[in-house]
Amino acid sequence: MRFVPVFGKGEPNPYAEHFTGQTYLAPLNAYSESLKVPAANVTFEPCARTDWHKHTGGQILFVTDGEGRHQIRGGEIEILHPGDVVAVEPNVEHWHGAAPDSWFSQVAVTPNAPDNKAVWLEPVTDKEYK
Amino acid sequence: MRFVPVFGKGEPNPYAEHFTGQTYLAPLNAYSESLKVPAANVTFEPCARTDWHKHTGGQILFVTDGEGRHQIRGGEIEILHPGDVVAVEPNVEHWHGAAPDSWFSQVAVTPNAPDNKAVWLEPVTDKEYK
Repeated sequence: MRFVPVFGKGEPNPYAEHFTGQTYLAPLNAYSESLKVPAANVTFEPCARTDWHKHTGGQILFVTDGEGRHQIRGGEIEILHPGDVVAVEPNVEHWHGAAPDSWFSQVAVTPNAPDNKAVWLEPVTDKEYK
Repeated sequence: MRFVPVFGKGEPNPYAEHFTGQTYLAPLNAYSESLKVPAANVTFEPCARTDWHKHTGGQILFVTDGEGRHQIRGGEIEILHPGDVVAVEPNVEHWHGAAPDSWFSQVAVTPNAPDNKAVWLEPVTDKEYK
Protein backbone atom coordinates (compact mmCIF):
# COMPACT_ATOMS: atom_id res chain seq x y z
CA MET A 1 0.00 0.00 0.00
CA ARG A 2 1.11 3.52 -0.77
CA PHE A 3 1.11 5.56 2.44
CA VAL A 4 2.64 9.00 2.42
CA PRO A 5 2.94 10.44 5.92
CA VAL A 6 3.41 14.20 6.28
CA PHE A 7 6.89 13.85 7.76
CA GLY A 8 8.07 11.11 5.42
CA LYS A 9 8.23 7.36 5.65
CA GLY A 10 12.01 7.07 5.75
CA GLU A 11 13.65 3.68 5.77
CA PRO A 12 12.87 0.30 7.37
CA ASN A 13 13.29 0.80 11.09
CA PRO A 14 16.83 -0.07 12.24
CA TYR A 15 15.40 -0.89 15.67
CA ALA A 16 13.08 -3.58 14.22
CA GLU A 17 14.10 -6.07 16.91
CA HIS A 18 12.05 -4.03 19.39
CA PHE A 19 8.94 -3.90 17.21
CA THR A 20 6.28 -6.33 15.96
CA GLY A 21 5.48 -5.97 12.26
CA GLN A 22 6.96 -3.63 9.68
CA THR A 23 7.83 -0.12 10.76
CA TYR A 24 9.78 2.74 9.22
CA LEU A 25 11.93 5.50 10.66
CA ALA A 26 12.54 8.96 9.23
CA PRO A 27 14.98 11.03 11.29
CA LEU A 28 13.89 14.69 11.49
CA ASN A 29 15.89 17.24 13.50
CA ALA A 30 19.11 15.78 14.86
CA TYR A 31 20.32 16.09 18.43
CA SER A 32 21.65 19.52 19.22
CA GLU A 33 23.55 20.20 22.42
CA SER A 34 21.64 23.44 22.96
CA LEU A 35 18.14 22.20 22.04
CA LYS A 36 18.40 18.63 23.44
CA VAL A 37 15.22 17.55 21.60
CA PRO A 38 15.85 15.32 18.59
CA ALA A 39 12.82 14.00 16.73
CA ALA A 40 11.98 11.26 14.25
CA ASN A 41 8.89 10.16 12.39
CA VAL A 42 7.84 6.56 12.94
CA THR A 43 5.43 4.82 10.55
CA PHE A 44 3.68 1.54 11.34
CA GLU A 45 1.90 -0.79 8.92
CA PRO A 46 -1.47 -2.11 10.17
CA CYS A 47 -1.03 -4.19 13.38
CA ALA A 48 2.59 -3.11 13.78
CA ARG A 49 3.60 -1.82 17.19
CA THR A 50 6.49 -1.23 19.51
CA ASP A 51 7.40 -3.64 22.28
CA TRP A 52 6.57 -2.50 25.77
CA HIS A 53 9.21 0.07 26.70
CA LYS A 54 9.95 3.20 28.67
CA HIS A 55 12.07 6.28 28.11
CA THR A 56 14.23 7.43 30.99
CA GLY A 57 13.65 11.03 29.89
CA GLY A 58 10.09 10.68 28.58
CA GLN A 59 8.64 11.04 25.09
CA ILE A 60 6.10 13.18 23.25
CA LEU A 61 4.15 11.79 20.27
CA PHE A 62 2.53 14.05 17.68
CA VAL A 63 0.09 12.05 15.57
CA THR A 64 -0.04 13.12 11.92
CA ASP A 65 -1.43 10.26 9.81
CA GLY A 66 -3.67 7.23 10.00
CA GLU A 67 -5.07 5.65 13.12
CA GLY A 68 -2.99 4.42 16.03
CA ARG A 69 -3.02 2.85 19.43
CA HIS A 70 -1.29 3.79 22.67
CA GLN A 71 -1.35 2.14 26.04
CA ILE A 72 0.28 2.91 29.34
CA ARG A 73 0.88 -0.19 31.49
CA GLY A 74 -2.24 -0.81 33.54
CA GLY A 75 -4.39 1.59 31.54
CA GLU A 76 -6.86 1.27 28.68
CA ILE A 77 -5.79 1.21 25.04
CA GLU A 78 -6.23 4.71 23.59
CA ILE A 79 -7.19 5.29 19.95
CA LEU A 80 -5.07 7.95 18.26
CA HIS A 81 -5.95 10.18 15.32
CA PRO A 82 -4.11 12.98 13.54
CA GLY A 83 -3.89 15.99 15.84
CA ASP A 84 -3.56 13.92 19.00
CA VAL A 85 -0.55 14.59 21.22
CA VAL A 86 0.64 12.12 23.84
CA ALA A 87 3.12 13.29 26.47
CA VAL A 88 4.62 10.37 28.36
CA GLU A 89 6.51 11.07 31.56
CA PRO A 90 9.93 9.51 32.22
CA ASN A 91 10.00 5.80 33.09
CA VAL A 92 6.32 5.20 32.32
CA GLU A 93 5.94 1.85 30.55
CA HIS A 94 3.94 2.03 27.34
CA TRP A 95 3.59 0.83 23.77
CA HIS A 96 2.29 2.48 20.61
CA GLY A 97 1.50 1.39 17.12
CA ALA A 98 -1.00 1.18 14.31
CA ALA A 99 -4.67 0.20 14.38
CA PRO A 100 -5.42 -3.31 13.07
CA ASP A 101 -6.73 -1.91 9.78
CA SER A 102 -4.81 1.33 9.32
CA TRP A 103 -1.31 2.58 8.75
CA PHE A 104 -0.14 5.07 11.38
CA SER A 105 2.49 7.72 11.60
CA GLN A 106 3.66 9.84 14.53
CA VAL A 107 6.47 12.25 15.20
CA ALA A 108 8.35 11.13 18.31
CA VAL A 109 10.07 13.97 20.15
CA THR A 110 12.76 12.91 22.61
CA PRO A 111 13.26 15.40 25.44
CA ASN A 112 16.22 15.36 27.81
CA ALA A 113 18.65 14.01 25.23
CA PRO A 114 21.30 12.69 25.20
CA ASP A 115 20.61 11.08 28.60
CA ASN A 116 17.16 9.86 27.61
CA LYS A 117 17.46 6.12 27.02
CA ALA A 118 14.81 3.76 25.67
CA VAL A 119 14.52 0.69 27.88
CA TRP A 120 13.00 -2.14 25.84
CA LEU A 121 10.84 -4.77 27.51
CA GLU A 122 8.72 -7.67 26.21
CA PRO A 123 6.70 -7.68 22.99
CA VAL A 124 3.03 -6.70 23.03
CA THR A 125 1.22 -9.98 22.54
CA ASP A 126 -1.65 -10.39 20.08
CA LYS A 127 -3.93 -10.83 23.09
CA GLU A 128 -2.82 -7.54 24.61
CA TYR A 129 -3.09 -5.85 21.22
CA LYS A 130 -6.49 -7.45 20.38
CA MET B 1 -11.86 30.60 4.48
CA ARG B 2 -12.18 27.22 6.11
CA PHE B 3 -8.72 25.93 7.01
CA VAL B 4 -8.43 22.85 9.19
CA PRO B 5 -4.86 22.23 10.33
CA VAL B 6 -3.94 18.79 11.61
CA PHE B 7 -3.25 20.04 15.13
CA GLY B 8 -6.22 22.39 15.33
CA LYS B 9 -6.69 26.09 14.75
CA GLY B 10 -7.35 27.03 18.36
CA GLU B 11 -8.24 30.59 19.27
CA PRO B 12 -7.13 34.02 18.05
CA ASN B 13 -3.52 34.39 19.14
CA PRO B 14 -3.25 36.06 22.55
CA TYR B 15 0.20 37.33 21.54
CA ALA B 16 -1.22 39.20 18.52
CA GLU B 17 0.76 42.35 19.42
CA HIS B 18 3.92 40.53 18.24
CA PHE B 19 2.43 39.42 14.91
CA THR B 20 1.31 41.04 11.65
CA GLY B 21 -2.05 39.80 10.37
CA GLN B 22 -4.41 37.29 11.89
CA THR B 23 -2.94 34.27 13.63
CA TYR B 24 -4.33 31.54 15.86
CA LEU B 25 -2.88 29.54 18.73
CA ALA B 26 -3.78 26.01 19.81
CA PRO B 27 -1.91 24.86 22.92
CA LEU B 28 -0.86 21.19 22.66
CA ASN B 29 1.13 19.51 25.41
CA ALA B 30 1.56 21.76 28.43
CA TYR B 31 4.83 22.38 30.22
CA SER B 32 5.92 19.47 32.34
CA GLU B 33 8.77 19.78 34.81
CA SER B 34 10.22 16.46 33.72
CA LEU B 35 9.79 16.87 29.94
CA LYS B 36 10.48 20.63 29.68
CA VAL B 37 9.15 20.76 26.11
CA PRO B 38 5.73 22.39 25.77
CA ALA B 39 4.28 22.77 22.28
CA ALA B 40 1.60 24.74 20.52
CA ASN B 41 0.19 24.89 17.02
CA VAL B 42 0.30 28.30 15.35
CA THR B 43 -1.84 29.05 12.29
CA PHE B 44 -1.29 32.07 10.05
CA GLU B 45 -3.69 33.51 7.48
CA PRO B 46 -2.05 34.45 4.14
CA CYS B 47 0.60 37.20 4.63
CA ALA B 48 0.46 36.87 8.41
CA ARG B 49 3.78 36.49 10.19
CA THR B 50 5.58 36.90 13.46
CA ASP B 51 7.66 39.95 14.28
CA TRP B 52 11.38 39.42 14.28
CA HIS B 53 12.22 37.61 17.48
CA LYS B 54 14.52 35.14 19.16
CA HIS B 55 14.09 32.41 21.75
CA THR B 56 16.66 32.28 24.53
CA GLY B 57 16.34 28.47 24.54
CA GLY B 58 15.71 27.93 20.83
CA GLN B 59 12.67 26.62 18.95
CA ILE B 60 11.75 23.73 16.65
CA LEU B 61 9.01 24.11 14.02
CA PHE B 62 7.20 21.12 12.52
CA VAL B 63 5.29 22.20 9.41
CA THR B 64 1.98 20.40 8.94
CA ASP B 65 -0.29 22.47 6.68
CA GLY B 66 -0.19 25.06 3.92
CA GLU B 67 2.83 26.98 2.71
CA GLY B 68 5.01 29.12 4.94
CA ARG B 69 8.03 31.33 5.12
CA HIS B 70 11.01 31.36 7.49
CA GLN B 71 13.98 33.66 7.61
CA ILE B 72 16.98 33.88 9.87
CA ARG B 73 18.41 37.41 10.14
CA GLY B 74 20.90 37.89 7.32
CA GLY B 75 19.78 34.79 5.42
CA GLU B 76 17.45 34.09 2.52
CA ILE B 77 13.72 33.57 2.98
CA GLU B 78 13.00 29.82 3.06
CA ILE B 79 9.78 28.35 1.67
CA LEU B 80 8.19 25.81 4.00
CA HIS B 81 5.89 22.91 3.16
CA PRO B 82 4.31 20.15 5.23
CA GLY B 83 7.00 17.78 6.43
CA ASP B 84 9.65 20.48 6.81
CA VAL B 85 11.31 20.81 10.20
CA VAL B 86 13.17 23.94 11.25
CA ALA B 87 15.44 23.78 14.31
CA VAL B 88 16.48 27.25 15.44
CA GLU B 89 19.32 27.54 17.91
CA PRO B 90 19.03 29.77 21.00
CA ASN B 91 19.23 33.55 20.43
CA VAL B 92 19.09 33.31 16.64
CA GLU B 93 16.88 36.13 15.30
CA HIS B 94 14.19 34.94 12.91
CA TRP B 95 10.61 35.29 11.77
CA HIS B 96 8.10 32.83 10.36
CA GLY B 97 4.69 33.03 8.83
CA ALA B 98 2.41 32.22 5.92
CA ALA B 99 3.03 32.55 2.20
CA PRO B 100 1.31 35.52 0.54
CA ASP B 101 -1.38 33.29 -0.96
CA SER B 102 -1.64 30.40 1.50
CA TRP B 103 -2.66 29.68 5.04
CA PHE B 104 0.08 28.03 7.09
CA SER B 105 0.24 25.96 10.22
CA GLN B 106 3.22 24.74 12.25
CA VAL B 107 3.73 23.04 15.56
CA ALA B 108 6.17 25.08 17.63
CA VAL B 109 8.11 23.03 20.16
CA THR B 110 9.78 25.01 22.94
CA PRO B 111 12.85 23.27 24.36
CA ASN B 112 14.56 24.31 27.58
CA ALA B 113 11.36 25.51 29.25
CA PRO B 114 10.61 27.23 31.54
CA ASP B 115 13.75 29.35 31.08
CA ASN B 116 13.23 29.74 27.33
CA LYS B 117 11.97 33.28 26.76
CA ALA B 118 10.77 34.81 23.49
CA VAL B 119 12.44 38.18 22.93
CA TRP B 120 10.28 40.20 20.56
CA LEU B 121 11.86 42.70 18.18
CA GLU B 122 10.51 44.86 15.34
CA PRO B 123 7.78 43.86 12.87
CA VAL B 124 8.71 42.28 9.53
CA THR B 125 8.03 45.05 7.03
CA ASP B 126 6.12 44.45 3.79
CA LYS B 127 9.40 45.11 1.97
CA GLU B 128 11.23 42.42 3.96
CA TYR B 129 8.29 40.05 3.53
CA LYS B 130 7.85 40.81 -0.21
